[in-house]
Amino acid sequence: MRNIKLTIEYDGSSYAGWQRQKNAMTVQQKLEESLEKLCGEPVNVIGSGRTDSGVHARGQVSNFKTSSTIPPERYSYALNSMLPSDIRINCSKEVPMDFHARFSATGKKYRYSIINNTHGTAIDRQYLHHVSSPLDIQAMKEAAKIFEGTHDYAGFMATGSPVKSTVRTIYESKLIQDGSLLHFTVTGNGFLYNMVRIMAGTLIDVGKGKISANVIPDIIAYRKREKVGATAPANGLFLEEVYYDELL
Amino acid sequence: MRNIKLTIEYDGSSYAGWQRQKNAMTVQQKLEESLEKLCGEPVNVIGSGRTDSGVHARGQVSNFKTSSTIPPERYSYALNSMLPSDIRINCSKEVPMDFHARFSATGKKYRYSIINNTHGTAIDRQYLHHVSSPLDIQAMKEAAKIFEGTHDYAGFMATGSPVKSTVRTIYESKLIQDGSLLHFTVTGNGFLYNMVRIMAGTLIDVGKGKISANVIPDIIAYRKREKVGATAPANGLFLEEVYYDELL
Repeated sequence: MRNIKLTIEYDGSSYAGWQRQKNAMTVQQKLEESLEKLCGEPVNVIGSGRTDSGVHARGQVSNFKTSSTIPPERYSYALNSMLPSDIRINCSKEVPMDFHARFSATGKKYRYSIINNTHGTAIDRQYLHHVSSPLDIQAMKEAAKIFEGTHDYAGFMATGSPVKSTVRTIYESKLIQDGSLLHFTVTGNGFLYNMVRIMAGTLIDVGKGKISANVIPDIIAYRKREKVGATAPANGLFLEEVYYDELL
Repeated sequence: MRNIKLTIEYDGSSYAGWQRQKNAMTVQQKLEESLEKLCGEPVNVIGSGRTDSGVHARGQVSNFKTSSTIPPERYSYALNSMLPSDIRINCSKEVPMDFHARFSATGKKYRYSIINNTHGTAIDRQYLHHVSSPLDIQAMKEAAKIFEGTHDYAGFMATGSPVKSTVRTIYESKLIQDGSLLHFTVTGNGFLYNMVRIMAGTLIDVGKGKISANVIPDIIAYRKREKVGATAPANGLFLEEVYYDELL
């Protein structure tokens, strides 16, 4: 048996997210179907975590175990010749048998991208959330920094998500402006369900002047979903990178 | 009667190009259908030029004449509420009655974008032409500069295109590298049918070592399609801007 790690890029626009579902096409299913043909046996692909319907990934990581003797580096080429063009395998390699894409992950980096102009955009529309109201960028930058550190993020989670602990450590959280584009990038040891999209929605509310940046610490401490901004739409979100302790 | 100028952005992926056709949806038809509803009369939209099936535009320009009393600046808002999200009107304004999007144009700027890596890309795949072979970027940069100046570009035109003169002046032609992305930008007083895509295809051949940069002047002088590189695919091409003498 071999344990193979895949680094995967996908445009989530046409998928009901990462995780296999009964009545909708997902990225995991596309991968498992291609791998089953390739390996000649059923294959269970483990992802570093779920991404929601419409969310994109530049660096999703997964692993699978197989008795196939295909050279590990060949999986990327073979899979890319079978998969639709909105899913690309950027790297495939053999890793130790105890590597687990989800449990071995030590952190993740997400990016949420916004276009802030009058009419939105046709080009890249599936990768940008359009906000037409004027935004106070400086306030949004200050608010983004406040997310850094170890906090109980119970309020920044879709209601009803079962989870043991809602404490997460954010290593870096920043907003960068590039003309009419805003990129919110956040790196942490883990994220609650919808956490980045709720953070992005809160930053947009700060930009609109609905919430003041300096009340963000109170909003975090209040630990209730209703004090926090709306969940920003899926299409602006990218899973950028998944981190592991060893250089795998 | 008023003459209205529109600046239009579109993702050409789902259209059979700009110009109205019998059996396929085009950007011009979408615009004319929306304007007819809006103005309550048939409207003929004149474009600065055609774009082919799959080609994109960041700054296509068009004009139309109407007896409607809708304030000129409102057309962008009204049209954007009716048009599909892959077409956006970034500006609408009244211009003198003798303004003609095609005949008044004094120049155009195009961009052709390439991703040069092993596996291509899922994100932005509809905006980038994928080239997997290693490319000599320095040779491509040198070749791009050679297109500048006034030349007879008869060889850089799809065969069978009827045109009075094949002489065109290229004001600027350059290739910029941004990691694995290559952007070929070319500005000129006019372009022959498929000219930018044939230029891009020729640059790719230079990058692959099939053509030497220093034979480009001979290839231009030979004035035959068969000496020139292949026509690069439509999806990498953007009509960036259309220029007019007056500041309209």
